[in-house]
Amino acid sequence: MSVVKVAILGFGTVGEGVYKTIHSHAEELTAVLGKKVEVAAVLIKNKQKRRNIADEVLITSDIEEILQLPQLDLVVEAIVGKEQPFSFLQKAIKRGCHIITANKEMFASHSSELLKLAEENHVSVGFEATVGGGIPIIQTLRQLLKINRVQHVQGIVNGTSNFILTEMREKQQSFAAALKLAQENGFAEADPTNDVEGFDAFYKLMILSRIAFGQEPNWNEVDIAGITSITSELIETAEKLGLRFKHIVSAGKVGSQVKGSVSPVLVSKNHPFYHVEGVENAINVHSDIVGRITLQGPGAGMFPTASAVIEDLVYVCQSHLSRGNHSQTSQAASASVQDKKESSEFWLVHGLQGNYLNPLISWIEQIGEETFIIRAAKEDVVQLATQNKTVLFYLIVDGYQLTNLNKQESLTVSL
Amino acid sequence: MSVVKVAILGFGTVGEGVYKTIHSHAEELTAVLGKKVEVAAVLIKNKQKRRNIADEVLITSDIEEILQLPQLDLVVEAIVGKEQPFSFLQKAIKRGCHIITANKEMFASHSSELLKLAEENHVSVGFEATVGGGIPIIQTLRQLLKINRVQHVQGIVNGTSNFILTEMREKQQSFAAALKLAQENGFAEADPTNDVEGFDAFYKLMILSRIAFGQEPNWNEVDIAGITSITSELIETAEKLGLRFKHIVSAGKVGSQVKGSVSPVLVSKNHPFYHVEGVENAINVHSDIVGRITLQGPGAGMFPTASAVIEDLVYVCQSHLSRGNHSQTSQAASASVQDKKESSEFWLVHGLQGNYLNPLISWIEQIGEETFIIRAAKEDVVQLATQNKTVLFYLIVDGYQLTNLNKQESLTVSL
Repeated sequence: MSVVKVAILGFGTVGEGVYKTIHSHAEELTAVLGKKVEVAAVLIKNKQKRRNIADEVLITSDIEEILQLPQLDLVVEAIVGKEQPFSFLQKAIKRGCHIITANKEMFASHSSELLKLAEENHVSVGFEATVGGGIPIIQTLRQLLKINRVQHVQGIVNGTSNFILTEMREKQQSFAAALKLAQENGFAEADPTNDVEGFDAFYKLMILSRIAFGQEPNWNEVDIAGITSITSELIETAEKLGLRFKHIVSAGKVGSQVKGSVSPVLVSKNHPFYHVEGVENAINVHSDIVGRITLQGPGAGMFPTASAVIEDLVYVCQSHLSRGNHSQTSQAASASVQDKKESSEFWLVHGLQGNYLNPLISWIEQIGEETFIIRAAKEDVVQLATQNKTVLFYLIVDGYQLTNLNKQESLTVSL
Repeated sequence: MSVVKVAILGFGTVGEGVYKTIHSHAEELTAVLGKKVEVAAVLIKNKQKRRNIADEVLITSDIEEILQLPQLDLVVEAIVGKEQPFSFLQKAIKRGCHIITANKEMFASHSSELLKLAEENHVSVGFEATVGGGIPIIQTLRQLLKINRVQHVQGIVNGTSNFILTEMREKQQSFAAALKLAQENGFAEADPTNDVEGFDAFYKLMILSRIAFGQEPNWNEVDIAGITSITSELIETAEKLGLRFKHIVSAGKVGSQVKGSVSPVLVSKNHPFYHVEGVENAINVHSDIVGRITLQGPGAGMFPTASAVIEDLVYVCQSHLSRGNHSQTSQAASASVQDKKESSEFWLVHGLQGNYLNPLISWIEQIGEETFIIRAAKEDVVQLATQNKTVLFYLIVDGYQLTNLNKQESLTVSL
């Protein structure tokens, strides 16, 4: 029987999960591929550290040693960082290897170059593990929704932020206390900036957008906001209104361009994200034929992420198409999506001191001394915040339903 | 450019949706397939009825006329009934056509024969539209979860039942009133038996089970219960306990066998189905590597179902594998799933008159004169109901969490 030889770059949570899963599911892999999958090499940083890796596997901190192996079919990359893993994968592709990556920062930055290089070298690129952990969102967009024109994608894609928001709400904890708990549970890094400031979510949104629309928003035009502005008091206010803060990435077509946002927003009970709690991730896809479908599942963790890598491995091994072709298809299919105009939306505005008159802003309801629900276009809310430095503002998703609700129940809402 | 010639059997909601979508998405189909997709014929019952179908399409009530067309590549079947559509599809396969069906009753009964016949004739069978409307659950199980061993599948797969339960709870309506509303909205047939008695859900479960486990439960061993036993009072009681009735199909491996159930059960707030309301469908897949993922979306309707058919059409046209092969793979991959033992579970028991002592039943809490929460194995609950003809019983999913909750909050629960 022929053998698929795999190298794993990095042996952190994801790398180790992939290693273990290839062994625990050897029988299934052989049944599906008709070939044995073997880990030939593991790239590590520190050669002194003891790891549970079989003796016959090459363990090295030198990528060249791996690339010079007599047979190497597929490289799984699960390293932290951007430029170094990118250069490793370029070399692997030129060597003729298929590649699979779990590294969203690297892939968001270099997907075009990698996909092009892969196409030239007739190999495939798998990146299911970069977004949504074990949720098969990339393949659903790519394989299962080929004719549906995607109109809008929304996601809770940062488990750390969602965990912190859940803890703050459920246990009335401060941001700092919830963050500490996340760190103790291994859900947040010692330096949590990437997660709580929205950068991790931003990279994932760029990857999602490329698959859903064949293009990305202009990186410089996407406002990136994390969850650090959310206080216990704001969460309490939202709760009284029947709303919950969720950190949501969103991308949709406006004319021929894709617009994106990364920010905490408020969702009502009718939104499928209202109930997505803890480290769970969820992604909504609005398409023209099917309507809205939601995928929910574990967004991180050793085995969910390993699952995404392994399912990619099977797809890559079975596929003879390079991924670049698919991307073009997706582009062609979504190019004719109808123009959608931005209109005014509902916002929770907090910290507004003094009067502020603007005919473009509808004042829906005052729900606290400095807290209001307004209806306005985003640019007008931004202007409001520019003129009032203490102002925080959050989009209310499905806001129309909220105001209908409020008409009946506004008496029960007070701060 | 070459052309894919399609016949649509039946021009009800689904058939018409497919016809319209092939026209509205002609450009996308051509971009993805490199071929034009053309509806060559439509099979109808009543030739007198006026329909919005182009002149060049053959409209006939005679299947033989369609099968004798000089070119016919693919047949989409969307008829009601079992044996007649089965015989049509057998003929189409023998003629060399790929087939796609949206008919769950027919496919649940005849999938083995159709898949075998298709394999012999080197054509493909698509049936995404038989389960979950527009939710791509069949392809997710088949294409995206090839290495994960599925342990358990659960679903809300009957939109009519879910709509009725939602209406009864939200608007405190009787079953009869909610059913009438469903009929007025086109969510239920004039004869609702198939939906409200659980048969429609049963067929879908059999199809899901075959894909997830490569085999079905013994049809005679599956208890099929619909929602007709659910009263407004029961829904109110559940609500006070923080629980909701959902009509859920479920299948899992027990030893080498697959066991299934179709019944209304109670779910708590932590279950992803708690929030699935109205005609939405949702499916949970528990697999060994990835854990639990949930797919939610529109379970019925003209365009969601057409979406499933059209995405199948693309898959079938692109694929050179007959589906029979996949099915065997799935079987091989799931054959080694570890044995799982049935254990005692939590139940809401209603209508219990007089004392009933059984050492195998733990009485957790009395929540009304005749209403109790108990912990017991299913066989003991069944025995209880056999001896007390007035007894109704419902499984509480995630019951352990409920009793923990109850310890703190039991005082607030009363009838």
